[in-house]
Amino acid sequence: MQSQSIGLVEKRFFHLPASLALEGGDSLDSITLAYETYGELNQTKSNAILICHALSGDAHAAGFHLGSDKAGWWEIMVGPGKAIDTDRYFVICSNILGSCMGTTGPSSVNPKTGKAYGLAFPVVTIGDMVTAQKALIDSLGITRLLSVIGGSIGGMQTLEWSIRYPAMVFSAIPLATTQRHSALAIAFNEVARQAIMADPNWQNGDYYEGHKPDLGLAVARMIGHITYLSDTAMRNKFGRRLQDKDAFSFNFDADFQVESYLRHQGNKFVNRFDANSFLYITKAADYFDLTARKSAEHQPAFAATTTRYLVVSFTSDWLYPTRKSKAMVKAMKKHAIDVSFCEIEAEWGHDAFLLPNPRLGDMLSGFLDRMSKEYRNDNTHAL
Amino acid sequence: MQSQSIGLVEKRFFHLPASLALEGGDSLDSITLAYETYGELNQTKSNAILICHALSGDAHAAGFHLGSDKAGWWEIMVGPGKAIDTDRYFVICSNILGSCMGTTGPSSVNPKTGKAYGLAFPVVTIGDMVTAQKALIDSLGITRLLSVIGGSIGGMQTLEWSIRYPAMVFSAIPLATTQRHSALAIAFNEVARQAIMADPNWQNGDYYEGHKPDLGLAVARMIGHITYLSDTAMRNKFGRRLQDKDAFSFNFDADFQVESYLRHQGNKFVNRFDANSFLYITKAADYFDLTARKSAEHQPAFAATTTRYLVVSFTSDWLYPTRKSKAMVKAMKKHAIDVSFCEIEAEWGHDAFLLPNPRLGDMLSGFLDRMSKEYRNDNTHAL
Repeated sequence: MQSQSIGLVEKRFFHLPASLALEGGDSLDSITLAYETYGELNQTKSNAILICHALSGDAHAAGFHLGSDKAGWWEIMVGPGKAIDTDRYFVICSNILGSCMGTTGPSSVNPKTGKAYGLAFPVVTIGDMVTAQKALIDSLGITRLLSVIGGSIGGMQTLEWSIRYPAMVFSAIPLATTQRHSALAIAFNEVARQAIMADPNWQNGDYYEGHKPDLGLAVARMIGHITYLSDTAMRNKFGRRLQDKDAFSFNFDADFQVESYLRHQGNKFVNRFDANSFLYITKAADYFDLTARKSAEHQPAFAATTTRYLVVSFTSDWLYPTRKSKAMVKAMKKHAIDVSFCEIEAEWGHDAFLLPNPRLGDMLSGFLDRMSKEYRNDNTHAL
Repeated sequence: MQSQSIGLVEKRFFHLPASLALEGGDSLDSITLAYETYGELNQTKSNAILICHALSGDAHAAGFHLGSDKAGWWEIMVGPGKAIDTDRYFVICSNILGSCMGTTGPSSVNPKTGKAYGLAFPVVTIGDMVTAQKALIDSLGITRLLSVIGGSIGGMQTLEWSIRYPAMVFSAIPLATTQRHSALAIAFNEVARQAIMADPNWQNGDYYEGHKPDLGLAVARMIGHITYLSDTAMRNKFGRRLQDKDAFSFNFDADFQVESYLRHQGNKFVNRFDANSFLYITKAADYFDLTARKSAEHQPAFAATTTRYLVVSFTSDWLYPTRKSKAMVKAMKKHAIDVSFCEIEAEWGHDAFLLPNPRLGDMLSGFLDRMSKEYRNDNTHAL
């Protein structure tokens, strides 16, 4: 079958009916979630898949918005005949709490003041993001998701879903992710945050009526891009090749292609992303730690879930290397969980899950197909 | 034999007698080099060792300055009875061109304007640093160094010495270094430079009469410290341990020890280092590429040297990993060079060469002892 784009799609908005109690102790009123859906929910509501996006992603996972030629961020994977086949599945993607792509976050208007929250926005966790998503899924009348899928911080949400709402998550596919951030991952995030907070325009987060901390955010994004690639990926992509010149400039222009690439990524990012959202989402990722989590019965996190997992890592991912995924799989297996694990050979580093990869596509479609069958045969369906 | 500190030492200054022609095409007048020496030069001037320092180092490698209790940066390695034994060897260390620790650099007064150079200082190379050092060694009446030793960027200078002035370098010990920067190493340096240049106080390098770009420099240093450690080193040193608290702060304070550590390193650095020097020295390191260098006979860099090498790498160094050293050793061996190579098990990442390590000490002292004997027996001595 020929795969194609889902075509025109629309961003929608869901307003949470009640305030959300947050893990940090605060509660948050008037939350809006931006989301998109692709495909049709079937009569038994058994074909719903939730896609969770990463740090700088949004609800626009596939297709095109009216008047734009920019495809969704996972267009390669989501659409009719694609690995996540919208002819078969009803796919939902929502922008995470704390972000700036339509969902409530630090750049949103605080109803109490009529001005942007800034740092008055509470620090949210991956758990809070998932709790907000659950309200959306509830509102769609879906009691159990066929699968939750996500990479990187989206993978953390995927894991969180399966731990927090196990009865609602028939299967889960955490990609290129980890049960918790290493000191190294925290270090990268912290330096990126410091770059933002060092920008005088940051103004302790209260910059929405003045100049934005673009220079700081650009540096933060550059740090991020170093972690998304890998030594190998950079060598293959750039090596020591010079940018548009035959010799060194002997000044502080970008001599090397890798320098131009990073500057470009940094400058591009500031046009579409909010610096405070970068702070909040990276903090949520740093706080995430499934290994420290206990179930209601004081058991390890995976003791209480019945979710079936497909865990995928990528050989050149140095942010969340394969050994992190293996530790996760080991923790799952201790509780006799149905888990498949695959390490995919890919030289693009952490970003690999976003790039075309037939092996990843085949693995997702095969797993989802098996899950569809098992879901139909599962007696515990009517929970 | 008991090892001890060399004790009180003095910083000296050498004024280059002539202007220096730089690789970038400019020339530089009125260069001063800060340097220190330890031990005594013997009658045959055959016991001289030059130590080359890394990015943020200085001429103060060992001992103490009057009124200060801060030992030199390689106190563990240099002194009476130590691996680099000042009872046997005459040890020289000089601050590199472009730095800010007594040697001429961008923070020095430009004699043409009476003001600090700032970006009017020419971009210098590792080769230029070495050419300036050679003038110092010449002035001391030393025609051949028993050894040149250095780690990281100091290792680049060590290699450069052996290629540029092979007849003057009987042996060389490049530690934790590389023939050239990878795209990844350039990327880290570039983001660090961008952090400095993003600081509004940087003022295009012209900040010496106003506020310094401390916030940008601190972020740059934090990026550096991520590369000096390693995933393993950070896990062992910090893991996910919290700083002075039992629970997350749910704000943007430093929650984790690794965050406090990086902030501390960043803040400490701005008191002792010049932001422009950081730009110049990292640029010199990025430009360094022995693999692209040809001898006068259009042969590879190592074709024309007779230097004996001891190459040392460290298992957890991810900035200049062992495979970089192995590539260097391979290039040397192609030209039948006398080279010993050792990878030392060390979990502290790139910084390992600065930390106590009996194995490294034994290796240096053993190699230097062998070199002393070979130097004495060498017929080509009188060049």
